[in-house]
Amino acid sequence: MNEREQIGTPGGMPGAETLTEWKRLAARTAVAAVPDGAVLGLGSGSTAEMMLAELAERVRQGLRVTGVPTSERTRALAVSAQLPIVELDAAPTLTMSIDGADEVLLPALHLVKGRGGALLREKLVASSSAFRVIIVDASKLVPSLATHAPIPVEVIPFGWRHTAARLAALGCQPALRRIASATDADNQDAAPFTTDGGNYVLDCAFGPLAQPDMIAQQIKAITGVVDSGLFIGMTERVYVGAADGVHVYDRPAAT
Amino acid sequence: MNEREQIGTPGGMPGAETLTEWKRLAARTAVAAVPDGAVLGLGSGSTAEMMLAELAERVRQGLRVTGVPTSERTRALAVSAQLPIVELDAAPTLTMSIDGADEVLLPALHLVKGRGGALLREKLVASSSAFRVIIVDASKLVPSLATHAPIPVEVIPFGWRHTAARLAALGCQPALRRIASATDADNQDAAPFTTDGGNYVLDCAFGPLAQPDMIAQQIKAITGVVDSGLFIGMTERVYVGAADGVHVYDRPAAT
Repeated sequence: MNEREQIGTPGGMPGAETLTEWKRLAARTAVAAVPDGAVLGLGSGSTAEMMLAELAERVRQGLRVTGVPTSERTRALAVSAQLPIVELDAAPTLTMSIDGADEVLLPALHLVKGRGGALLREKLVASSSAFRVIIVDASKLVPSLATHAPIPVEVIPFGWRHTAARLAALGCQPALRRIASATDADNQDAAPFTTDGGNYVLDCAFGPLAQPDMIAQQIKAITGVVDSGLFIGMTERVYVGAADGVHVYDRPAAT
Repeated sequence: MNEREQIGTPGGMPGAETLTEWKRLAARTAVAAVPDGAVLGLGSGSTAEMMLAELAERVRQGLRVTGVPTSERTRALAVSAQLPIVELDAAPTLTMSIDGADEVLLPALHLVKGRGGALLREKLVASSSAFRVIIVDASKLVPSLATHAPIPVEVIPFGWRHTAARLAALGCQPALRRIASATDADNQDAAPFTTDGGNYVLDCAFGPLAQPDMIAQQIKAITGVVDSGLFIGMTERVYVGAADGVHVYDRPAAT
């Protein structure tokens, strides 16, 4: 029985609306634990946006925080929520960061992130944070990473086909992410998707990973790879919204 | 007695003009070995420019080669020398690449490159080449890498100060490379130098490296690092111009 089933969804995952509600509960619980005066890394994506809404509410009630955004979109949302923001390079070590994730592996709290394309800035902010918090709904808990979808890998555009060949040699099928609608996945003529940093993303289909830490190292070691969506040993706490409430997982000291 | 002394310069290195002549001899010897029909990676920097001049001469005599440039400057020089060129992504595995280096460690042929700022594209082209050739004068042979100067490390601009702190934790002093004249090294207000890919360069002063392969891996593993100027196990042959002619070193099979 895997962790997802333990949380009480033996009949499979509920609908999107229920998952959203679970995620919102998890976000509220996570934001309630943000200390006054925190310098706080602000993730990107739909979960992070819920977190921002909850954070804005606490700020209206008097909480003082300074946000460090991981994307242009998060920056704009933080500004419109009247959060003071600071650039990563102007900030010392961050007190905490809060972000979402695409997949979470228990108990080590290894992650897959980056389906939204902001993986590098999210990873840079996480690397500079003293305490990393992740918010998910229970559908994101997996028995092995790369179960649901490929691993996003950010690569330098120059020579990307050769970089893709080196990634394929690790045992995956890399596909260049393109700007195209979900219903237009076969359009190989669409322009490549580019990250905030101007790089490409290769979505690398590995299948479930037995040793995600080793694969993460091998991917990062490749010339042309900037970084991957595997976040290994970079999370201290995960809040999981589920049918019976919010579960909190802390990283074991040994991992 | 180190390798540099063995080559016959017990009284120290000769002047710049003599070193240039040695390099030209080495370039001529290397270019003489380029096979007809080669798809050839073209390095960047002063040595590569000598190589291009020699190559242009052979092309005038009938050699057929297609060049893959590693920088905009090399591309322009190749075009004006009437070499056919092709982009890296349009080329299959390259037959050979020829480039210069800042330091060469014998017998493994590990290198430091990138003082000129083109390290990433040079490394990407080298990674895609079946046989990698380096041309240097004898002053570039060192008993340990990082002897003469810092290791250039290309980093993502976003959060570069935090990336620099993670590099410093490996035991070096990183300095952001800036656009400034050599006589203006103290000008900390000058704009950062940016690479062809829009990234920054941190020149990391390690002092002579006892284990360059380990340090290269540790540098590349850092989030925010794109790649370093350490080229480990990426060279098959080095041509060294010296007082008594050109010495040829092939990489031992074991390294």
